Amino acid sequence: MSDASSDVLVETAVDVPSGLPARIPTPQPGDPRLARLSLNQRTTANWSLREAIDGTVAAGLGSIGLWREPVAEVGLATAVEWVRASGVRVSSLCRGGFFTAADPTARRAAHDDNVRAIEEAAALGARTLVLVPGGLPEGSKDLAGARARAAEAIAALAPVAKRHGVVLGIEPMNPIFAADRGVVSTLGQALDIAEQFPADEVGVVVDTFHLWWEPAVEEQIMRASDRIVSYQVCDWITPLPADTLLSRGMMGDGHIDFPGFTSAVTAAGYTGDVEVEIFNADVWAAPGAAVLATLARRYLELVEPWLGAAGLDTVRPRA
Amino acid sequence: MSDASSDVLVETAVDVPSGLPARIPTPQPGDPRLARLSLNQRTTANWSLREAIDGTVAAGLGSIGLWREPVAEVGLATAVEWVRASGVRVSSLCRGGFFTAADPTARRAAHDDNVRAIEEAAALGARTLVLVPGGLPEGSKDLAGARARAAEAIAALAPVAKRHGVVLGIEPMNPIFAADRGVVSTLGQALDIAEQFPADEVGVVVDTFHLWWEPAVEEQIMRASDRIVSYQVCDWITPLPADTLLSRGMMGDGHIDFPGFTSAVTAAGYTGDVEVEIFNADVWAAPGAAVLATLARRYLELVEPWLGAAGLDTVRPRA
Repeated sequence: MSDASSDVLVETAVDVPSGLPARIPTPQPGDPRLARLSLNQRTTANWSLREAIDGTVAAGLGSIGLWREPVAEVGLATAVEWVRASGVRVSSLCRGGFFTAADPTARRAAHDDNVRAIEEAAALGARTLVLVPGGLPEGSKDLAGARARAAEAIAALAPVAKRHGVVLGIEPMNPIFAADRGVVSTLGQALDIAEQFPADEVGVVVDTFHLWWEPAVEEQIMRASDRIVSYQVCDWITPLPADTLLSRGMMGDGHIDFPGFTSAVTAAGYTGDVEVEIFNADVWAAPGAAVLATLARRYLELVEPWLGAAGLDTVRPRA
Repeated sequence: MSDASSDVLVETAVDVPSGLPARIPTPQPGDPRLARLSLNQRTTANWSLREAIDGTVAAGLGSIGLWREPVAEVGLATAVEWVRASGVRVSSLCRGGFFTAADPTARRAAHDDNVRAIEEAAALGARTLVLVPGGLPEGSKDLAGARARAAEAIAALAPVAKRHGVVLGIEPMNPIFAADRGVVSTLGQALDIAEQFPADEVGVVVDTFHLWWEPAVEEQIMRASDRIVSYQVCDWITPLPADTLLSRGMMGDGHIDFPGFTSAVTAAGYTGDVEVEIFNADVWAAPGAAVLATLARRYLELVEPWLGAAGLDTVRPRA
């Protein structure tokens, strides 16, 4: 009887936001295949920090990617306590960066804010602080200048990060965001900056949505090797939703070859967590538990089998 | 009195679609600075071929970039006759390509259609046929395969183009279109394909909207040198309109550094026409004559001064 009801559960499960029937059973808490799966908080944007931690635990995921704003809402000390009590690891803290301003006062403010972000990441036990470089300053058309300033800002932050045991993760962003969000547009470009520093100070964030189109991306992933400090997954869907900021899709709903991309990341030696980060109004409108069940199924179907057996050491909680 | 009324005209001119006052006087027909300016037909999408040719002549532009669909509407012979009678050159024909299909029948059909496009370009006196490679076939996630098939299709077309005196122009497209329109995403990638062929058979289309974000794009433009067969300009605007296909803006309304980009194209030796190609619902809603007046002003302000003195030879009508 219990077997039968379990079958029924599988058959009636529905993926969100597609509304399609689930193709595989939902993995249960304790399933070792979930050890490296992380919920990036923005995927369940309507959940509070408390709900996100509880949802991550309930779904049996190994870790969570936190955002600074919801952490600030409850206060850093409380967030640290909740995370510690929950037993989930913090795969990364999002996000520092936004340091392309030309004005010295704004640059100083950005640096100071990034120092605070590093301190928060350290307190939360997140090894990686994700850096979104920022776009062109208002009215500026000097893309090369903005890119140079991003590199300078990282140089100023690297020693601070090192002191706190946090690695800075430069996130190259799809060129769709080059003007208003991220002037570092390719993994190759991110590595050109990161390689100016030791690998334990500055790394790169590999996000399928941002990089799936990059020519010879496999070679750049191999080049990244020990600098990949976060692997984030979500799909590129078409037609793009009206708000392109929310144009990310659930893995499997779009055009990205996750087995191929993940194989490259594995071949490069990555053994860390895999964050699912989806900005999408339809995903946000769905119940959080359904989102987690869907992303866990899609992860097991499209990502996890290509991660290889490595990584058991590195996914242990930090002391 | 005629001087005074001319002044009034200048002062009351309004740019479209911004609604801002014109910053410089509208150039008049006969102004030699307009010799290399071309109206790409899609910028005035609501105009028929007849209207577009008449509008180009009335504004004093040297050339027009035609699209196959409006040419087909009146018939090729009529289009050829109208173009010849108008005295404007055809800077390019848009567009061939869309040859990423995996199915042999579809590939054959795409090849045959591209042969017809080459014949049309030759008949119209267009030296360049713009090739938009096409996206991923329905359901496919094999981006590398689609890119390889695009290169194969170009190899099959190159001898046909040569025979007709037409150069194939590979148009690398902003990665925003990688899934559904153009799998060739950077100028570097387009050149990797083009360089497999003689420069008088296969070249590249340099479009500011598609390439402005590309890392080290100046170096790629220099590498392109004698392979640049079309220079197309329009701006990258934010926030992107809901329909990203229509997200191009009037030069000066967005984030692109036209003087810098144009200087690179000039330094690479380009002496051909400059096509203004803007897909934008607000531009389409404006009266065509106002669109041409605005684009001519913006061209004189942001592009033409950086073109250098070269090119007088190459912009003469073909015999």
